[in-house]
Formats: sequence, structure tokens, C-alpha cells
Amino acid sequence: MSDVAIIMGSKSDWPIMEKAYKTLVDLEISCTKEVVSAHRTPERMVEFAKQARQNGFKVIIAGAGGAAHLPGMVASLTTLPVIGVPISLNKLDGMDSLLSIVQMPKGIPVATVAIDNAINAALLAARMLSLENSQVETRLNELQQSQIETVARMNQDLGK
Amino acid sequence: MSDVAIIMGSKSDWPIMEKAYKTLVDLEISCTKEVVSAHRTPERMVEFAKQARQNGFKVIIAGAGGAAHLPGMVASLTTLPVIGVPISLNKLDGMDSLLSIVQMPKGIPVATVAIDNAINAALLAARMLSLENSQVETRLNELQQSQIETVARMNQDLGK
Amino acid sequence: MSDVAIIMGSKSDWPIMEKAYKTLVDLEISCTKEVVSAHRTPERMVEFAKQARQNGFKVIIAGAGGAAHLPGMVASLTTLPVIGVPISLNKLDGMDSLLSIVQMPKGIPVATVAIDNAINAALLAARMLSLENSQVETRLNELQQSQIETVARMNQDLGK
Amino acid sequence: MSDVAIIMGSKSDWPIMEKAYKTLVDLEISCTKEVVSAHRTPERMVEFAKQARQNGFKVIIAGAGGAAHLPGMVASLTTLPVIGVPISLNKLDGMDSLLSIVQMPKGIPVATVAIDNAINAALLAARMLSLENSQVETRLNELQQSQIETVARMNQDLGK
Amino acid sequence: MSDVAIIMGSKSDWPIMEKAYKTLVDLEISCTKEVVSAHRTPERMVEFAKQARQNGFKVIIAGAGGAAHLPGMVASLTTLPVIGVPISLNKLDGMDSLLSIVQMPKGIPVATVAIDNAINAALLAARMLSLENSQVETRLNELQQSQIETVARMNQDLGK
Amino acid sequence: MSDVAIIMGSKSDWPIMEKAYKTLVDLEISCTKEVVSAHRTPERMVEFAKQARQNGFKVIIAGAGGAAHLPGMVASLTTLPVIGVPISLNKLDGMDSLLSIVQMPKGIPVATVAIDNAINAALLAARMLSLENSQVETRLNELQQSQIETVARMNQDLGK
Amino acid sequence: MSDVAIIMGSKSDWPIMEKAYKTLVDLEISCTKEVVSAHRTPERMVEFAKQARQNGFKVIIAGAGGAAHLPGMVASLTTLPVIGVPISLNKLDGMDSLLSIVQMPKGIPVATVAIDNAINAALLAARMLSLENSQVETRLNELQQSQIETVARMNQDLGK
Amino acid sequence: MSDVAIIMGSKSDWPIMEKAYKTLVDLEISCTKEVVSAHRTPERMVEFAKQARQNGFKVIIAGAGGAAHLPGMVASLTTLPVIGVPISLNKLDGMDSLLSIVQMPKGIPVATVAIDNAINAALLAARMLSLENSQVETRLNELQQSQIETVARMNQDLGK
Repeated sequence: MSDVAIIMGSKSDWPIMEKAYKTLVDLEISCTKEVVSAHRTPERMVEFAKQARQNGFKVIIAGAGGAAHLPGMVASLTTLPVIGVPISLNKLDGMDSLLSIVQMPKGIPVATVAIDNAINAALLAARMLSLENSQVETRLNELQQSQIETVARMNQDLGK
Repeated sequence: MSDVAIIMGSKSDWPIMEKAYKTLVDLEISCTKEVVSAHRTPERMVEFAKQARQNGFKVIIAGAGGAAHLPGMVASLTTLPVIGVPISLNKLDGMDSLLSIVQMPKGIPVATVAIDNAINAALLAARMLSLENSQVETRLNELQQSQIETVARMNQDLGK
Repeated sequence: MSDVAIIMGSKSDWPIMEKAYKTLVDLEISCTKEVVSAHRTPERMVEFAKQARQNGFKVIIAGAGGAAHLPGMVASLTTLPVIGVPISLNKLDGMDSLLSIVQMPKGIPVATVAIDNAINAALLAARMLSLENSQVETRLNELQQSQIETVARMNQDLGK
Repeated sequence: MSDVAIIMGSKSDWPIMEKAYKTLVDLEISCTKEVVSAHRTPERMVEFAKQARQNGFKVIIAGAGGAAHLPGMVASLTTLPVIGVPISLNKLDGMDSLLSIVQMPKGIPVATVAIDNAINAALLAARMLSLENSQVETRLNELQQSQIETVARMNQDLGK
Repeated sequence: MSDVAIIMGSKSDWPIMEKAYKTLVDLEISCTKEVVSAHRTPERMVEFAKQARQNGFKVIIAGAGGAAHLPGMVASLTTLPVIGVPISLNKLDGMDSLLSIVQMPKGIPVATVAIDNAINAALLAARMLSLENSQVETRLNELQQSQIETVARMNQDLGK
Repeated sequence: MSDVAIIMGSKSDWPIMEKAYKTLVDLEISCTKEVVSAHRTPERMVEFAKQARQNGFKVIIAGAGGAAHLPGMVASLTTLPVIGVPISLNKLDGMDSLLSIVQMPKGIPVATVAIDNAINAALLAARMLSLENSQVETRLNELQQSQIETVARMNQDLGK
Repeated sequence: MSDVAIIMGSKSDWPIMEKAYKTLVDLEISCTKEVVSAHRTPERMVEFAKQARQNGFKVIIAGAGGAAHLPGMVASLTTLPVIGVPISLNKLDGMDSLLSIVQMPKGIPVATVAIDNAINAALLAARMLSLENSQVETRLNELQQSQIETVARMNQDLGK
Repeated sequence: MSDVAIIMGSKSDWPIMEKAYKTLVDLEISCTKEVVSAHRTPERMVEFAKQARQNGFKVIIAGAGGAAHLPGMVASLTTLPVIGVPISLNKLDGMDSLLSIVQMPKGIPVATVAIDNAINAALLAARMLSLENSQVETRLNELQQSQIETVARMNQDLGK
């Protein structure tokens, strides 16, 4: 049983979504990865989404590009929080993906992060899990702390 | 058994989609209308789409706004031609609807018409049906002919 | 102690944000409301965000328009999940608000919902809280169920 | 006599439009290809479109970029279904092509597919032809089935 | 025989195009007006454009909205200068009209003016005609002069 | 004395504007080229524009990028027809240039062509000059004729 | 002699620009107002800009809409700081004005504020003047302080 | 004590912001550089901004990309003039950065320059400083003068 499910519309989304996976692994949050395509395997998607909660998942991260229906459709079939990652394809710089994911109608929310920003999807999942898991909270605090040091190092490099 | 199914994500789409209905009725093409919401009734949508061909439908017209997933999802669950009508909501002038419908990935086409232009969805369905129905072809020819007269009348009004 | 804090940049955002408030009240989720302006009360904002977790909040919903900095700034000062509601102002249909909220850099996620869609912000908060609160989960299930009935009623009205 | 005519505004559109051609050949649907430019050979275009139905074509696929007038103009001169492929040129990522093709006025529909997505144009033509050709329907079903296997293979590669 | 032909895709464009007409009348430049629809009367359009020069026209002003093909198509069928007026329709603020008119391919230019700015189309036609008609040049000079006075009056009103 | 003046905001615009130059040379239309910057040499620009007509120019072609003020400013200082070429810079694909050139206020028209399409600027100038110069008209006719042959050759290459 | 000159392209811009005027009056900063049109009175604009510094102005606020050239042109003719206010016209929500003003080339900066936000232009001018005028600095501090009270009052109204 | 502080959200912004630094050095205006991240070091940002004036800074130049909050947040914590440089990231060409910086609400102005145009930020700072520093004014005049020579040289190269 994993806390987070990372799903994506195609294997070609993996180079982006892998960053979510690695971030979760670094945070010691259990997660799975799977290609679940809204358009190529719609029935598998329905099954996945409907069983997600009873399968023990607490958060679903879904990445998709273009007319990106996966995050919203999964959100309509579960009451778990669903995080959408708009993936940019060759054209339009991901604006189509962003609007297809974020502009959900009243009733079915998708927690949308920045275009191609799968790391933030993982961190958002971690924030949600931190509500009931103080270890995750501790790690997020450490991470936030470490960013202050990163900026300090940047300033050394810059010869401030 | 009807030739065309008009579906839409919400009753609030009806003032737009009704124009498709009326156009088909005028063309004497049999059609049904139904609210089938990708996000509120995803399982009904799956069932509808999977049985559409065996239920005798030949073309599906699907209208939706915002993160408009209905046309693309239905297209992924049938091999019938699906026509998508992007419906404009309060903001963004339907650009979100248009991109969510037209930017489908390779493998699952949606025949997209102009924003809010349900009449053209009906006429496109009629063109498809005209391939095997010469009466429809005749009516489309008459319609095209009548537009020439419409322009002539406009020019009289204009005092050309 | 409330589970959800609803904050907004100005009282003029209240007509939108009130929908989040009412949705949470309907779901029997405790919540507070406050104007916390990133630009007019930046130090209050820092204080609010830094103390949010120890003040018992579990989720923060932040609404803002234009160069909407409130959700992202609050997210940088807490490890709680922050939900951003892009509020449309007179011009640009909320596209400036959306991009200012969703396009956060790696490290600081904001869970962005659709433009002006504060209801979905509340529902997203409820989904997060449902991870540890089965009553909320039950209510979300009921809500999702009731949407099926809503669509059924729509179809009756439509004379399907 | 071919079922589908693939036309395009310039030979430079061929690398995109060739994908429609190959897809149709794979589906064993007869098709022709021709450069028919709205702007360089407007009279040939008129002649082509007016005679398309009597020349035995059932569907026309028209690709064009920039101020892309070919699909709409052809649609105005025939009652056959016309599928438009917006082709992206150097600038604007095909947004000009998309709007020039999809935003047709009431009366003259163009079935628009995604930017540069000529494969979907072919598949949409196949869906239309499947209404009267059960072999095409069978092949489309097989194709849709094979996508489920493609996703399964992707998941093996991913080490799900 | 008139110097300028004002054509438009529909009578509904007249409230915009009338401003071009009135401006030309004010400048004492002879002009005609006619609905010539690219999509409803494509063959009349071809005929109009091909005979425009021999019919004595020197400049053509064409207004159209949405997927606005009229100016570009007419330009492809004549060597007269063609001025395109992008007319805004209900949605997209005329951005679709603008791109459909201005983004013409190499070989076929359309002189595009601002969205809904038919007055400027008339003035541009006048500038072209002024190359061989010194009366028009004189009137344009007077007009330009009068704008200086207009600004002076504005400053009086403003209580500068 | 030349018929056409080609001006541009910077020497870096020359690779684009050179195409206008070459097209005019091919058409045997006399032309000059000059860097006249609205922002770096505003007074030279004023002088150039005010004297353009008496210096014998008949048409001015002005290319500029970004906040592209040159075409509109020159148009405000002469009554000659001014053709604007929006030049795309590193970002925004020329959309800023296009809007800065085409969206002129009532009273001062700029004949705008497609982004980076200096060839069309030259051809538009030629169309204007053809009103009083039958040799130019003949060459434009030949050019238009030759495009039909180009398409024929393309079809041979394509193996139509 | 006034510290700030408020100029605008047309009297129709006054309802927006008046807010800058009133803000400056409130801050007891001396200012003048004048219609100076880049396109209708280009030579007056040159004269105004060239003499602005010797006429005692320290900051110029310029408002303009559409192809908004006034701020950038004035900036090219003075070394005073120029603040540009993009004014939205009927269409495009001021996006054309914004890009025409902000996207200035290297060498000629315009300090651009939000669309229609003339108040911020005045406040920005005040910040500049505060560098040498401690009274203005004091007033800006008071203003910033008063915003904290405004937010407090909003929270009272909201029944926080 | 330096006149200008150049701050940026990340060291990765330095290649752009360095141009502001070099321009100021060339103008002999004292300046400092520092990474101050709104999102990673929000409290350092507050401290920096609040003390900026008493630390002797007269102008702050802040560069940031994506959901670019740094310029606006700093402006809310000081009464010094703040210049914002929208930095383009991988996607959207800096449009998100531009809107996040320029669309500030009434009360808190940011002087926004063109996307990635840090040179203009430096020149704008210099214009502000020239109000009380005649040496800077002289250098700006020289620079403006030198641009006339640059254009002259360009015309020699062009073989005007």
C-alpha cells in the first residue's frame, strides 16, 4: 500500500513525472507509478480511480498534456485529492494542458500546479500528508530550511 | 433509434445546444438530447459512449465548457464520429473549452467546431450522414443554395 | 480552532470567497475568514502564515486577483497545503490571476483551482481533510452521489 | 475513385499531412493527395471542391497554416464533410492556423482536429466512413484495442 | 465606376463597415458597398474579385469576422490592393478575425487595419488613391491638420 | 528618386527586411533602404516622414519589433500609405510587434502584413503602385500566374 | 513649474488619467495635465518631450491605448523617467496597450504600470520624487500605514 | 552605501540581471547584487525591503520569473521606487512573469520593463537618479546622443 499514486497519460510523460517520483522517494513517502490513459484506457482509468481510496492511496498525482483530461476525470471518480500536472507538448507551451486541467467545473476540484512542475506536485502531496504524519512535516520543514542555505550559497557564488 | 445523439455536460448548455437540435429537426434528421456529464456522471458517460453504436447512433454531438472533457472522453469510448462544441462560460471567452476539446492526442479525434456554434455541429453531422443518405444531401444542397438568396436579400436591404 | 482558513487580498474578493465559506459550512468543516493582504499588510501576512499550523489550521484557502501574490507568499511561509483561487478583475478575465498563482517555482507549491471557482477550493480542502476525517469523506461521497441525481433531474426538465 | 482526398496548401505541409496519408493506407482506406492552394490556385480549389462529391470522394482532409483558408473555403463549396488540420508555422505555434480553421461562421462547418495532428484527421475520416463500411469499423475497433496493449507495454517498460 | 469597393461577409458587418463608407463619402471618393460572402457565395466572390480591376475599382476594402477568409481570398484573385478589416464577433474580441486576415502566406498580401477600425481602412484607401489624385492628397492633409485643432479643443475642454 | 522607402528600426531587422528589398528589385520597382529608429533617432524619423512625399516616395515600408512604434509614427507624419512589418524578436513570437503596429487609433492607418512577412509588404507596395503603373500590374499578373505553375510542380514532386 | 506632467493621447483617456491627477493632488505634488497625441500631434509631442526637463518636470506620466506609442516616444526624446499607463479600449482588454508600452527595446525604458491603473502611476512618480523630497516620503509612509487600517476595517465589516 | 540594489529570485536569473549590473557600472552608479527570494527566503526579503531606504538605497531593481512575486512584495514593504524585470523561463515566453509583475493592485506600484530587458531597468534607475544627480543626467544624454551615431554606423554598414 502506497500513500501516493503517480499516474500519467503516456510513457512519454515519465521524464517530467519522474521528478515527482524522486521527490517523494527523497521524502520517504511511499508511491507507485503507472500509465493510466484517459483516452486509451478509459475503463482502466475508471477502475483505478474508483478503487484508489480502498487501495490505500491518499493522494493521486496525475500528469497529462494537450487536451489533458486525466486529472479531472480521475477527480470525478474519487473523493481523494487529485493533483494535476499540466505537461507541455510541442506546441502552445502547455497552455492547453493548463487550461484543460485547471478550469474544472464546480463540484470536481483538481489541485493544479505549474506547467511541467512535477516536483511541486510531489511537495503538495507531502503537505497534504503532513496533516497526519509528523515525519513528513519535519522533512518539509527541513527542506524549507535548506532553501535558505541554498540562497546563502548562491550569494557566495555571486560574490555578493 | 435516432441517428444523432446530442449530449451536453449540464442543462445550462441547452440554450446553445438547442440550436443543434433545431437544425437537425429542420433537416429531418432523427436525434436525441441528454445531459451526460463527464464529471458528475462519469460512469453513465462510459456506458452511454460504449453502447452508442449498438444503440443505433451514427454521430454524437457533445457540448461542454471550461475544462471540457466530455467530447474527448466519449470519443475514447466509441468509434463513432464525435463532434465537439466548445461552450463559452463566464470567463476566457471559450478559449479554455476550445483547447480542451480540440487538442486531443494522437489516436482519439474529436471533430471540433467553432465556440458556441452548435448549428455547425448539426450541419457537420448532416454532412457525415449525407454519405449514405441522399435525402440529407439534397437538403444540404438546398440549404447551401438558400444562402445565396440570403446574401441577395441582404444586398437589397443594404441598397447595394 | 478551525480546520480551514479562508483569506483574501481585499474585502472586494468576498463575494467570490464567500462561496468557499458556505461550502465548508455546508460540509460542517470549521473555518475562519480574514482579509490578509500580501501587498497592504505584508507583515501580517508573514505572521499569519508562519503561525497557521500552530494555530490549528490544516488547510489555507487564499483568493487573490491581478498580480496575485497572496497564495504563493503564504505557501512560502508554511508547510500546510495552500489552495489558491484566481479571482478575475475587470480586465484579462483572470488570466493574470491564474498565471500569478499557478506558475510557482520548484519548491513552493500552490494547489490552484479554476478562475473564480471558490467552491472547488472548499471541496479540495474537504478532500484533503477526508484523509483523516471519515465524516468529511462520507459527506463528499453523498455530494458526489447527489450530483448523479442532479443530472437525472436536469434530464427530466430537458424532456429527454 | 478514392474515399478520402488529402489536400494541402503547399508541399511544405506534406511532412505533416503524410501522416494522414499513411494512417489511411494502414487502415486500407483509398485516398489521394494533392496540393490545392486557396491562395495560389483559388480557381483550381473551387473546381476541386465543387466536383469532389461527384468525383467519388466521401471525406476531404485539408491541411493549412497561418491564415488557413483552405478547409473553410472547400467546405463552402461542397456538402461533403471537410476535416481541417491546423498546421503550425514558424511563429504563434499554430494558434493562427487553429483559429482560422475552427472559427467558421454559422452554415459552413469544418471538423477541426488538433494542431499538426494529421493522424487524427485520418482517424476521424475513418470514423465517418465506418458508418457505412463495417471493415473500417472493425479496424478502428482493433486499433482502439491495440492501444490498451500499448499502455500495458508502457507499464512494463516503466517497471510499474 | 467607383474607386473603392467595400465588401463584407454579412449584412451584420454593416454597422462597422458603414464607417468606411461614410469616411470615403466625406473624402469625396466614389465607392460601392456589397455583401460578398466567402463562405455563402464563394463563386460570386471569385467573380467579383477577378473582375474588380476591369470594373474600375482601384482598392478593395473587405470586412469579415471569425475565420475571416474574405480579404485573403479576394486578394488571391486580383492584383489590386486589398484592405482587410477584422470584425470582432461575440467572443475572442476579434483576435480570431485579426489572425485570419493578417497572417497571409508569402505571395498574397492583405493590408490589415485594427480590429473594427473601418475608418482606417477608408483612410488607407485614400492614401493609396492620393498617389495619383492630388485632390485626395489635399483632403488628407486637411484632415491631418484638423486633428491638431481637435487636440487643441480637447485641451481647452480639459482646462489645461 | 525611388518609389518605395524601406525603413527599419535597427540593422538587426535587415535579414527580414532584405526580403522586401529583393522582391522590389525583382519587380523592377525602385527603392531605398535606411535604418530610421523611432526610439533612437526620433527626430530623424520625423524629418524623414515629413519629407517622404516631397522626396518622391510613394509608399513606405517600415519594419519593427517589440513595442514597434516606427510604422505608426511615420504614418502620423505623412499622408503616404505606410506598410508595417511586425518583426518577431526572441520572445512572444511577434505578437507584441503585431499588436503595436496593427492596433492604430482612428485617423492614422498602417497597412499591416503578417509577422516577419516582408515579401508581402513589397508585394502590397507593388499592388498600390500598379494603380498608376501598368508595367507593375503586368509583373504582378505574371507572378500570380507563376504560382499556379509552382503548385503544378509541387504536385509532380508529390507524385500526385 | 510642476513636478509631474500627466499627458494622454486623447481626452477620452481622461476618466482613467484623472485618477493619477487626483492622487498627485492628494499627495500635494504639483502636476499639469495635457492631451499630447503621438499620432495626431507628433510634432507637439516631440517639442513637449524635448523641453520637459528644462520646463521643470521631473517625471512624465503618459497614458495611451491600443497601439500605444506615446509613452515610448516621449521616453525616446527625454532622459526624464517616463511612466506608461496602458489604457484598455473596447477590445483585447488592454493587452495591446500593455505590450505596446512595456516591450520597449534596449536603450529606452518606460516604467509600465498595470492596465488602467493610473493611481499606481501617480504613486510611482511620488516614490521617485521621494528620493529628494522628504515630505513626499512622509506622505507615502502615511499612505502605506493607512492601508493597514483599511484592512483592519475590512475585517471588521467582514465580521472576522 | 550604494544607490541601486539589484536583487533576483535565483542565481539562475543572474545572466539576465548581470546586464543591469554592467549598465549601472558603465554609468558609474554604485550598486549591489543579491539573491533575495520571495519564496525561499521570504523573511530575508521582508527585512531587506523594510531596511532598504535606511540602508541608503534609492532604487531597487528586482528580477523574477514565472509567478514572479519578488518585485511586488518588495514594493509593498518600502516606499522606494521598485523596478521589476520579468524574466522568461522555459515556457510561456515570460508572459506569466510579465503579468505577475505588472498587474499590481492600486496602492503598490512596480515600474515594469520589457521581458528580460534588465538593461532598461538599469537605465530607468539612472533616469530616476538623474533627478538629483546631474552627472548621471549628463551620461544619459551622452548615451542618447551615441545612439544617433550607432544608427549612422548601421546605415553605413547597410550601404544606404
